[in-house]
Amino acid sequence: MNLIVLHETDFIRPGIVRLTGRRLEHISKVHRAEPGQHLRVGLIDGDIGLGEITDLSDQYVELRVEFTQSPPPPPPVTLILALPRPKMLKRIIQHVTALGVKRLVLINSYRVEKSYWQTPWLDEGKLLEQCLLGLEQAVDTKMPQIILRKRFKPFVEDELPELAKNSLKLVAHPVGGEACPVDLGESCTLVIGPEGGFIPYEVEKLKEIGFNSVHLGPRILRVETALPVLVSRLFPAH
Amino acid sequence: MNLIVLHETDFIRPGIVRLTGRRLEHISKVHRAEPGQHLRVGLIDGDIGLGEITDLSDQYVELRVEFTQSPPPPPPVTLILALPRPKMLKRIIQHVTALGVKRLVLINSYRVEKSYWQTPWLDEGKLLEQCLLGLEQAVDTKMPQIILRKRFKPFVEDELPELAKNSLKLVAHPVGGEACPVDLGESCTLVIGPEGGFIPYEVEKLKEIGFNSVHLGPRILRVETALPVLVSRLFPAH
Repeated sequence: MNLIVLHETDFIRPGIVRLTGRRLEHISKVHRAEPGQHLRVGLIDGDIGLGEITDLSDQYVELRVEFTQSPPPPPPVTLILALPRPKMLKRIIQHVTALGVKRLVLINSYRVEKSYWQTPWLDEGKLLEQCLLGLEQAVDTKMPQIILRKRFKPFVEDELPELAKNSLKLVAHPVGGEACPVDLGESCTLVIGPEGGFIPYEVEKLKEIGFNSVHLGPRILRVETALPVLVSRLFPAH
Repeated sequence: MNLIVLHETDFIRPGIVRLTGRRLEHISKVHRAEPGQHLRVGLIDGDIGLGEITDLSDQYVELRVEFTQSPPPPPPVTLILALPRPKMLKRIIQHVTALGVKRLVLINSYRVEKSYWQTPWLDEGKLLEQCLLGLEQAVDTKMPQIILRKRFKPFVEDELPELAKNSLKLVAHPVGGEACPVDLGESCTLVIGPEGGFIPYEVEKLKEIGFNSVHLGPRILRVETALPVLVSRLFPAH
């Protein structure tokens, strides 16, 4: 927790927050903080600043907070990802959030097993929880938007063209295509397939609406490794 | 398993291998392969090619193999990593191998808990196992060398200067320093600290022997995310 993320409901008076539960525990046990100490705080979807501990007990901690700077600018990418297996999903959501991605669409694909869509990790509350962990890690406050689309074809045909408008359209695919560009100067819609890759039909559907297939060289990476590699390669300055 | 990695002991005749166990299971259950089919194979620390299934039963699979190309060239980086917690270690070894890193030194640091050094995942056999999974994933054959150094100061003072000779010396540290360079044209020795970062004394010791502190921007990434970001940023062509 490199940032204590605050919500409007944490305020007991203007400029004063009272925290309990997980954040209290982290402040007292991990930071081993004491009254007078300053911690980095951020308001969800708002600015970042410092909080001074004014009161600390077993029940709660109070901080006087002041916000002084904007959260880091996000990389201009919309990420479209074939739904990972439940075991990976949690970590991937944290990766995505920590990398600063602000729009994620989880889609179906031939190699996504139907059962993956049943996981409780897709519940809105659980997704928000993982995003929050990513923000706390990365010192960011802006929640990503996560969109679920269970049908590949209608999404690609009816929604994706509008979603990807005015951005460079890339699909990461280990076979064929060109080397993925480095340090894009423009916004990008990036599609990443499932473990095992998209089937040729799916790659074709994406190409039909203007997506270019790009690869990362001869090594085939797991989605979990490819994701940070791709985002940092496209937007090294973010 | 994007590559079936073969060992000298798999050969029953020149050009013919017989496989059992995990590889047999993968070939028959995941690939659902049949006699006559071709699969990508590679000889450990050797070349890559194709294997044609000549015989397949519940007990074993036999392939006629031919090696035609070299494994992908590795990024010219020596990675020095504060020992991660056991839970992360396994995944990080797979990441490191899949990214093509061929020399990894796991070191101690103030924020590495002593108990981490006791994990069975550091046994040579277990490390080789994880490396093998990384090679199978990334379609590579060259095993990385993994070196364990339980004492920070003697390693940095007595060994690291020689190890890092004639390479760019970088320590990834979220606070201070310069932005991490993009697309290095030279070899690099890259030091990455533990979760929570190196303490100032450790960063100073590294600076004393010529390491420059570099950061990845305002976001603070977990080691697991930072690792692929750093390697791909320094060597996007690998």
